[in-house]
Amino acid sequence: MTSPEDVALALRGPILIVGAGLIGASVGKALVAAGADVHLWDIDRGNALVAAGRGAGQLDGLDDDAYRVVVVATPPAAVASTIVERLNRHPRAVVTDTASVKGAVLAELIDLTAGRDVDVTRYVGSHPMAGTQYTGPLTASGELFVDRTWVVTPRTDNRHDDVEQVIALARTCGARVVSMDADEHDRAVAEVSHLPHLMSILTAANLRHARPEHLRLAGSGIRDVTRVARSQTAMWRQILNANRAEVRSQLEAIRADLDDLLSRLDDPDLLEEFLGVGQSGARKVAGKHGHEMMKTTAVVVEIPDAPGALARLFADVEAAGINVEDLSVEHDPAREVGFLSIDVAPDRAEQLTVSMRDQGWTVRS
Amino acid sequence: MTSPEDVALALRGPILIVGAGLIGASVGKALVAAGADVHLWDIDRGNALVAAGRGAGQLDGLDDDAYRVVVVATPPAAVASTIVERLNRHPRAVVTDTASVKGAVLAELIDLTAGRDVDVTRYVGSHPMAGTQYTGPLTASGELFVDRTWVVTPRTDNRHDDVEQVIALARTCGARVVSMDADEHDRAVAEVSHLPHLMSILTAANLRHARPEHLRLAGSGIRDVTRVARSQTAMWRQILNANRAEVRSQLEAIRADLDDLLSRLDDPDLLEEFLGVGQSGARKVAGKHGHEMMKTTAVVVEIPDAPGALARLFADVEAAGINVEDLSVEHDPAREVGFLSIDVAPDRAEQLTVSMRDQGWTVRS
Repeated sequence: MTSPEDVALALRGPILIVGAGLIGASVGKALVAAGADVHLWDIDRGNALVAAGRGAGQLDGLDDDAYRVVVVATPPAAVASTIVERLNRHPRAVVTDTASVKGAVLAELIDLTAGRDVDVTRYVGSHPMAGTQYTGPLTASGELFVDRTWVVTPRTDNRHDDVEQVIALARTCGARVVSMDADEHDRAVAEVSHLPHLMSILTAANLRHARPEHLRLAGSGIRDVTRVARSQTAMWRQILNANRAEVRSQLEAIRADLDDLLSRLDDPDLLEEFLGVGQSGARKVAGKHGHEMMKTTAVVVEIPDAPGALARLFADVEAAGINVEDLSVEHDPAREVGFLSIDVAPDRAEQLTVSMRDQGWTVRS
Repeated sequence: MTSPEDVALALRGPILIVGAGLIGASVGKALVAAGADVHLWDIDRGNALVAAGRGAGQLDGLDDDAYRVVVVATPPAAVASTIVERLNRHPRAVVTDTASVKGAVLAELIDLTAGRDVDVTRYVGSHPMAGTQYTGPLTASGELFVDRTWVVTPRTDNRHDDVEQVIALARTCGARVVSMDADEHDRAVAEVSHLPHLMSILTAANLRHARPEHLRLAGSGIRDVTRVARSQTAMWRQILNANRAEVRSQLEAIRADLDDLLSRLDDPDLLEEFLGVGQSGARKVAGKHGHEMMKTTAVVVEIPDAPGALARLFADVEAAGINVEDLSVEHDPAREVGFLSIDVAPDRAEQLTVSMRDQGWTVRS
């Protein structure tokens, strides 16, 4: 469920960010740029200093009861305990977090507060879906969340005004807010991120059986499928572990499909039917900005692996004056050349092809 | 087993290409460019005319016994019967083909010639691993096979000189010859191409269970994993069907790994161990030109989705004077911006970062 875009929301009161790494400092920079009163705290004071130096907020704190919103942006392992601590210290604040799996935070929170007098109704979970390839406040950017999806996971016992403050914070950072409950969020990221990661891992792990000379036959297909499997295992261990119930359910669905696929292998019609289901699913996520793929035609130009070739090529594409919908640069697995695939509206492909050929490029279309 | 590179081989005698589509016409163009005497035939005379017009060979045929090499480059379904026909018509020729699965051709060949007087020892299979995204002689290129892998699948009853003629043909086209038997070839393509394709299909097919709003959480990872699943199902149906025994064996290995992975999900150490096996496999095929990935550092620059931005960016990268090892352009799933990841030697990353920042680009590294 997407929150209605027509509700104008505003942040009301000072904000405390706990954990001034990439995410915390980026949130701070975005809020400061929007005129908010932002304060920073980090268990490593060096992080807070760097973040403040980069314009992410002030180091000096206010009185505990002065804050309206507290953002917990610590590493995953510290999130739940930090939320509890901050709920106790800041009685007027809604406390939110930025962890990438929401159900695990909630479960730990309930464990930690069982039998204690902690007002967990002031916790509203959230998950800004922004890059985590880099860490630390040095690489923080106030633009990190612009037009990114930011999931907010309200519960029925949250106060409406608290939820609205978290949504206002996400919108102030430029994000597109998607509202769903914690379990649904965890299922969604299992479907579109965690399961695909493990499918990439399974495909790549299977290469341990392959003789080295067989790898000479590898092309761009397997490189695409196995690209995410190259990611840091330490980070993915945490993510997958925190969401293991949903991940297990996804893997079990795959096992059922795998058995179905095996039963279809000897019948070309049944096999192609299954390929069609996959093709249809792939098209759903193929779009340039998260939308369904638009119809385009690819004009494929050969580019020598030489200094400046791509720069000259882009200049010539630009000179053709045709709107480019998408681009991909693909190195050939064996040849010292690459291809640039230029996706344009179908009715402009011919014009671009002629124009590029006139400039002396080899066009395969 | 790679054939020794120190053996100088030459084509001896006229060549007939049967089937003047993309592959046949491209072979013809490469051989003609190297000075060979090439003749063309196609069941569709229009194809042969276009191919001849593009410099892929002559339309007029020689006497049947004049040819030293016959290349069968027809669609998969016609390959085996065409080989038999040509073995009979051209008693002095070695007959080769370009089909992407070798065991199936061989099996059909044995069926077709059982009890008949056909000299199948003059058949030597081969598989030029070049792009099949386009079809027909219009898009043929004499450079299609340059530095590509071309698998030759000799059998023990082949004459040494016949095998050498096929290897000479592949080398004359500029290809890197890899020699292995038909079964091993089929296992290798199952490992590095057919299985990855089906893993992509399984991942994409699983999205049929996802609610539409969940897809808003999709990022670049799932787009990479599911990219090949967008391919034409009619083509893949044929490929997978021809190699279904090897494909089945690969899928069964995946099923065993999937069960293993499920058993590791609740133990972060065991899970990370498996992620490491995948990461190691992915690095084996991650290299730019089919080699193992070299150590590089990515300098990631934000590029606005505006006309000319990439051209200006490439010009500035070039002006920095640093050798670029690899490039990838990635559109953000939600934001109207993209990122250019520029891979350079680790000791040049800082220099490139400073240089790009001086030019006003936002660098995330």
